[in-house]
Amino acid sequence: MQAITSGAAPIYFNQQIYSEISAYLAENNPSSVVILTDDNTYADCLPLLLEQLEFKTEPNILVMPAGEAFKTMEVTVSIIDELSNLLTDRKALMINLGGGVVTDLGGFVASIYKRGISYINLPTSLLAMVDASVGGKTGVDHGMLKNQIGVINNGAMVGVDIDYLATLPERQMRSGFAEIIKHGLISNADYWSAVLNFDPQTLEGLDTLIRDSVVIKNEVVKQDPTEKGLRKVLNFGHTLGHAIETYSLESDSMEDLLHGEAIAIGLVMETFLSRERFAFPEEELQKLKSIVKSYYPKVAFDQAAIEEIQGYMLHDKKNVKGQVNFVLLRDIGQPEFDQIVDNELINRAFDFYMKEM
Amino acid sequence: MQAITSGAAPIYFNQQIYSEISAYLAENNPSSVVILTDDNTYADCLPLLLEQLEFKTEPNILVMPAGEAFKTMEVTVSIIDELSNLLTDRKALMINLGGGVVTDLGGFVASIYKRGISYINLPTSLLAMVDASVGGKTGVDHGMLKNQIGVINNGAMVGVDIDYLATLPERQMRSGFAEIIKHGLISNADYWSAVLNFDPQTLEGLDTLIRDSVVIKNEVVKQDPTEKGLRKVLNFGHTLGHAIETYSLESDSMEDLLHGEAIAIGLVMETFLSRERFAFPEEELQKLKSIVKSYYPKVAFDQAAIEEIQGYMLHDKKNVKGQVNFVLLRDIGQPEFDQIVDNELINRAFDFYMKEM
Repeated sequence: MQAITSGAAPIYFNQQIYSEISAYLAENNPSSVVILTDDNTYADCLPLLLEQLEFKTEPNILVMPAGEAFKTMEVTVSIIDELSNLLTDRKALMINLGGGVVTDLGGFVASIYKRGISYINLPTSLLAMVDASVGGKTGVDHGMLKNQIGVINNGAMVGVDIDYLATLPERQMRSGFAEIIKHGLISNADYWSAVLNFDPQTLEGLDTLIRDSVVIKNEVVKQDPTEKGLRKVLNFGHTLGHAIETYSLESDSMEDLLHGEAIAIGLVMETFLSRERFAFPEEELQKLKSIVKSYYPKVAFDQAAIEEIQGYMLHDKKNVKGQVNFVLLRDIGQPEFDQIVDNELINRAFDFYMKEM
Repeated sequence: MQAITSGAAPIYFNQQIYSEISAYLAENNPSSVVILTDDNTYADCLPLLLEQLEFKTEPNILVMPAGEAFKTMEVTVSIIDELSNLLTDRKALMINLGGGVVTDLGGFVASIYKRGISYINLPTSLLAMVDASVGGKTGVDHGMLKNQIGVINNGAMVGVDIDYLATLPERQMRSGFAEIIKHGLISNADYWSAVLNFDPQTLEGLDTLIRDSVVIKNEVVKQDPTEKGLRKVLNFGHTLGHAIETYSLESDSMEDLLHGEAIAIGLVMETFLSRERFAFPEEELQKLKSIVKSYYPKVAFDQAAIEEIQGYMLHDKKNVKGQVNFVLLRDIGQPEFDQIVDNELINRAFDFYMKEM
């Protein structure tokens, strides 16, 4: 497949990645290569990568603990300490091999270590391939807030190799699929229809579905790399979804949700809001309901949970002057950003999710 | 005076600053204004600033402890926590009112909080005016290493108002003057001569000396904003100077040096290296020796100190593949970067400093 360009970072697919990395190494001759993995990708993905690449000098392998709970400033600083101890200099190259936690945190480390070194993202989860890998957003969670600290800084390239998905647990696959569903809702009827027709049993056409998702995200990012306007549409489902995810991680009264599991709930609720505000078509809302039902378990929210989630939304990065800003849809592929929604309507969205799902 | 442009950030001088900030506020209408100060500038400089500006809504004033020891990730995170608690959003403006610690750390906070908010630097020390304020370098020290973590990101503007110097302690003034001496050495004979002729008793012409220093730095930064090459010349005196500064702060056997006090030693030693390597003119080295003697106390180094300082130099950000990289001078205004110097010659530079100063 052809490379596609994301701001400064070209995106390569499957086998082409490794010849491009080899060419990059030959051309730039980095002083050292550091590969950041987590416990899982160290075991499952690193052997695949090392089979594909030859390094002039042995790369340094760093391993961080797996999981969103470790996407923190503490881990950021500990990796910076490891780089310092290795005498990693500004001409080094960092390769981030992992899911969104590894690519977000690794990209952030590379952006701030000695005021910035080069990095390459090799996403190994479906979520990271179709979302975190594209667009140069890096960062970590802080306090109870997701991606509260970070920078926008594109790496040297992104490589999307679906071979890494072979060892991804099914729950993680389904989590990643939520962003593909989102890309269906915000892009166009054709892609939305391809998403609805995808068969998670056979996985047939997953390769194309991923590539098209990357293209959709990339087209948006290229037009608005620093999220002054249009790029906000990629946050569809995320205003509620992020707050629900945070709540699930912080509260003892709900099981932890994966990112996509929370986003799937956010997609349903924010499409409900879209129907209420913009008469988004009922028929498409029903299709969304059934695909979300088929992929994700239902979650229960009591009144206390809803109030806490509304509290978290006040910290959403899209907000201005204390008003919670949503992306809403007029129809498939017709998003409107900077939409203010009051608490009463948000309460009704929770009602809708709980009664109708 | 006319504004000068630094990459993306214009630089204004004296009274014009406040009309430009007012115009910025009117045009951009930030959701809130946060002013970062330290214990000293909160007392000495903030009243001057608040006299000059009118805000539609009361700005939030943050106060960090004064001093290089607080230019850390811990303080960075604590200020991010304060911003989170204030529900500071991405449309906020941060004004950093202080010396290099406040402008470096505040600029870094603004660059990573919610992936970046706008900021204005108002340097209040001579050092920050002629050095830290220009060029978009932000960051903090880490472990024992200066500016080990940060980004290059220009703020919305820089304002250099020499009225803030009225309350600056004399030792701090002299520290800042080291960067002016450096600009004299790396720029041209005219400015070098103006620096040598400056009378620290009367301070006559300080305004022009500062403005010319800012112009010299800015010309370099504009040609190479991300320090791929030419910008390295601004590090003249800093390879040894930074390591000496770090040593003085970490070791119990030497009194803490201010940045410029350490840089002044670095300037003498690296000019000695320049004479050895490139036959830098003896006459100019003598002039440098006498101006450094007249401004700064002499420091003693024993063999253990010299070895530790050489250890710190291995972490210098300019290094590649473990070799210590220096900027050296062929003559006034003729710097050469990426010069590798061995330990034997560095030892002789310490000898020179100790015997001849």
